[in-house]
Amino acid sequence: MQLNPHYAELNESYLFSTIAHKVADYQKAHPEADVIRLGIGDVTLPLAASVTEAMHKAVEEQGHKGTFHGYIPSEQGYEFLRDAIRRYYAGHGVELDMSEIFISDGAKSDLGNLLDLFSQDNTILVPDPVYPVYVDDNVMAGRKILYLPATAENGFLPMPDEAPHADIVYICSPNNPTGATYSVEQLKAWVAWAKANDAVILFDAAYECFVSEPGLARSIFEVEGAKEVAIEVCSFSKIAGFTGTRCGYTVVPQALAGGKLNKMWLRRQTTKFNGVAYVVQRGAEAVFTDEGMKEIQQNLDYYRANAAVIAAALDEAGVWYCGGKNSPYIWLRCPNEMGSWEFFDWLLEHAHVVGTPGEGFGPCGKGYFRLTAFGDAERTKEAAARIKAALATL
Amino acid sequence: MQLNPHYAELNESYLFSTIAHKVADYQKAHPEADVIRLGIGDVTLPLAASVTEAMHKAVEEQGHKGTFHGYIPSEQGYEFLRDAIRRYYAGHGVELDMSEIFISDGAKSDLGNLLDLFSQDNTILVPDPVYPVYVDDNVMAGRKILYLPATAENGFLPMPDEAPHADIVYICSPNNPTGATYSVEQLKAWVAWAKANDAVILFDAAYECFVSEPGLARSIFEVEGAKEVAIEVCSFSKIAGFTGTRCGYTVVPQALAGGKLNKMWLRRQTTKFNGVAYVVQRGAEAVFTDEGMKEIQQNLDYYRANAAVIAAALDEAGVWYCGGKNSPYIWLRCPNEMGSWEFFDWLLEHAHVVGTPGEGFGPCGKGYFRLTAFGDAERTKEAAARIKAALATL
Repeated sequence: MQLNPHYAELNESYLFSTIAHKVADYQKAHPEADVIRLGIGDVTLPLAASVTEAMHKAVEEQGHKGTFHGYIPSEQGYEFLRDAIRRYYAGHGVELDMSEIFISDGAKSDLGNLLDLFSQDNTILVPDPVYPVYVDDNVMAGRKILYLPATAENGFLPMPDEAPHADIVYICSPNNPTGATYSVEQLKAWVAWAKANDAVILFDAAYECFVSEPGLARSIFEVEGAKEVAIEVCSFSKIAGFTGTRCGYTVVPQALAGGKLNKMWLRRQTTKFNGVAYVVQRGAEAVFTDEGMKEIQQNLDYYRANAAVIAAALDEAGVWYCGGKNSPYIWLRCPNEMGSWEFFDWLLEHAHVVGTPGEGFGPCGKGYFRLTAFGDAERTKEAAARIKAALATL
Repeated sequence: MQLNPHYAELNESYLFSTIAHKVADYQKAHPEADVIRLGIGDVTLPLAASVTEAMHKAVEEQGHKGTFHGYIPSEQGYEFLRDAIRRYYAGHGVELDMSEIFISDGAKSDLGNLLDLFSQDNTILVPDPVYPVYVDDNVMAGRKILYLPATAENGFLPMPDEAPHADIVYICSPNNPTGATYSVEQLKAWVAWAKANDAVILFDAAYECFVSEPGLARSIFEVEGAKEVAIEVCSFSKIAGFTGTRCGYTVVPQALAGGKLNKMWLRRQTTKFNGVAYVVQRGAEAVFTDEGMKEIQQNLDYYRANAAVIAAALDEAGVWYCGGKNSPYIWLRCPNEMGSWEFFDWLLEHAHVVGTPGEGFGPCGKGYFRLTAFGDAERTKEAAARIKAALATL
């Protein structure tokens, strides 16, 4: 028996596990320290009342023979949820067919599993810095990976005129970690590039709910012709606090590769997946009701206010940053030319605040640092004050 | 961009989708027919009261800030659930370490995803007939597949003295579809074979809860030394009716490949998976409480009684069958030397009963047919009576 040799090419451990270990070690050495975590992108507000109400109802159904739901009729997801998503997209002008929408247990699973559909010989183009699983997913499969630098110079929004030829390109917009968000105009250039290169765009729209400025894209399918070249992956984690409830969706258009990829993804999912729990799909459906949407907007506003608090502290300290407007992340340049991990340790020690070293998202993240607005409002205020005070001592 | 070429080598559609289409067509043509489905292995009893109670409590926690659970602290699963599984195994004499237990959204996902850990050059040995995803999972990856015939002659329990060399072997016991179940003694030979061949056993224990005869294995780890060669995959679908609630677990021993596979699986899951919903893990935990176990045993007895009803009808009709004792499946030889699909159509037409053609599980299933005991008791009695009556006309 031979193991997959490519796992040996991975970094020893996943970014957020490394951070968790570092923080655990610090807390062990300093049990009195009141550490505030603005590192991992986890939400803190509870599920909306419409969501828990729908889930209670579904649990009750699962407890009675007449209303019990066994295997999900289609691994692709219940029609009630796919239809709710279809209507949500129609709300921002994107028409989808029900057969194009696939319910998943989260964007992370689909971003990894989608690669099953492509040849191992494909070359992958990954923005740098970016959500680290794109790289790990492809290292595991032994694919050739090229990087597309996202820097302060290009506004962290690299354009295709700087791109080498590749077969698959990842675009994450609003970007994790920088918060940079492509406009519909800018994405037109990427769609044209994909057509010219016979490439597929894997569009990660996990943070689309934070888009608030006009002209910015919530979906790549706002670009005409994008259905011929793109797959879009999205999640309920950020829009509705589903990080611990696990639901997402992926759109594989029929127009892509003459319908082949839609058919292959359906086959992959019916073979290696059994769908998402009925109870969870009912909860996700409730997100799109009028009441659900109202509650969700209140939560998003709460997180936006946190971003503003962090931004204000950095402004006052004179630290350069971007993001926070169409994204829950603030991306700052480490002061005094500190390295990302150096600043991580410094901030943990001097402010007892945990962030994420930019370097963890790729080499171009060196010297940068990510803070999340998903924390509790009072704790975020406290963290912002501590960060400001600590920076003042430099 | 190149697609994965191996998808083209798959059969056009998945067995159970084919059946669903055939039944839908029949019902369209005969809207008055009262069709009873003993085909797909889906359960019909609702979740146990202890399970829904635990899920209601968890939904409530998710709705309040102080008790909200975001990202699952480890993709491997909550400790409360892994510890419950550890104790369950200890109950039948198998000691596991907490680090060896991984919670999943179901056996089907893990059976597919585990293959990520192995080289594409490995040769796979698959029993024939068997749960069809083993084959499809490996066709998708372009692996060489060898078959191990399970026939009436070997009691549907092929032994390693008939096996060619291979790197990975699947064992499903109690078997889907035949219901044949290996004894601990018989599995000793498979463990010895794996050691001699430097092979890994993927042991599918999804039906272990049905084992009722002494000497038969509920876990391959009841065999000494099995931890050095086997991975075990299990599910809450059958033991606790979680087909629509989605939870399972996989045991990757530290003793296997010097701990490498455990570490690789952890890395795979932290990169391509985000764990199972908190609400679902709380429900699964409740299965192992005293009250939960009592309720679950009542449900298993209900299904066992169904199996006995089907068996009695076949006995009276003089049809050969096996299974139904340590398994929810009855595996019968089609009467009058009919082919499996021929009998499928015949039974649908003459008894309005849906079963699964044995051929769908592999070439050795030709001429056999699977009926499931997971139906409603009254409907199963009705189906058994109709089957008996129809067979009498032959």
